[in-house]
Amino acid sequence: MTDRREAPFAFEGLDRVLHEKARLGILTSLADYREGLSFGELRDLCGLTDGNLSRHVQILEEAGLIEVTKGFEGRRPHTNCKLTPEGRQRFDDYLAVLEQVLLRARGDAVSGSARPKEGKPA
Amino acid sequence: MTDRREAPFAFEGLDRVLHEKARLGILTSLADYREGLSFGELRDLCGLTDGNLSRHVQILEEAGLIEVTKGFEGRRPHTNCKLTPEGRQRFDDYLAVLEQVLLRARGDAVSGSARPKEGKPA
Repeated sequence: MTDRREAPFAFEGLDRVLHEKARLGILTSLADYREGLSFGELRDLCGLTDGNLSRHVQILEEAGLIEVTKGFEGRRPHTNCKLTPEGRQRFDDYLAVLEQVLLRARGDAVSGSARPKEGKPA
Repeated sequence: MTDRREAPFAFEGLDRVLHEKARLGILTSLADYREGLSFGELRDLCGLTDGNLSRHVQILEEAGLIEVTKGFEGRRPHTNCKLTPEGRQRFDDYLAVLEQVLLRARGDAVSGSARPKEGKPA
């Protein structure tokens, strides 16, 4: 068995619930709009179909990351989605790991002029 | 239909081949070791099982992102994996999008003391 504690590139903190591309878009949108966003606004901001957005919203709600409130605006049904406090915290934690990924990868991945490494991992 | 060109949180550049957590670990490792890494080194750095690593290496190879060379070290079979030039370029492009995600999310997601937004998207 591999000992995951010693695997520097395992990126354990990249929780798959948050890391999935569409859900990452939803969470980033909601982080930006603290009072929440309607279903339609989220759909347009994230470029998702109604069906896809529904599916991902349900996953995020079941994970306790977002709160979904159904009501009416006048006679029209209105669904509002917002981050829960736990969701905000977990998203912050996720972003911290993402930043570590970037820092590691940019060690010499991005500059193009980086020195080649000769060494191998111990 | 949603017009994806106007969806600022669609993150089209987060190519799923690169974005998947295990593959992101593999690519980050290989970006760090320009001469490539053996199968066993990659497995340990990324905290993957042999089976999982094989599967992800195959996906990355088929996508043209990495090059896999099989040979021998003495009598022992030795598999070396390294980024292709295209793989390095696409990983760089991916990292640039990841950085945009972080910048957007950190608009007020991480500081904790950020102002609440009242506005809604247009």
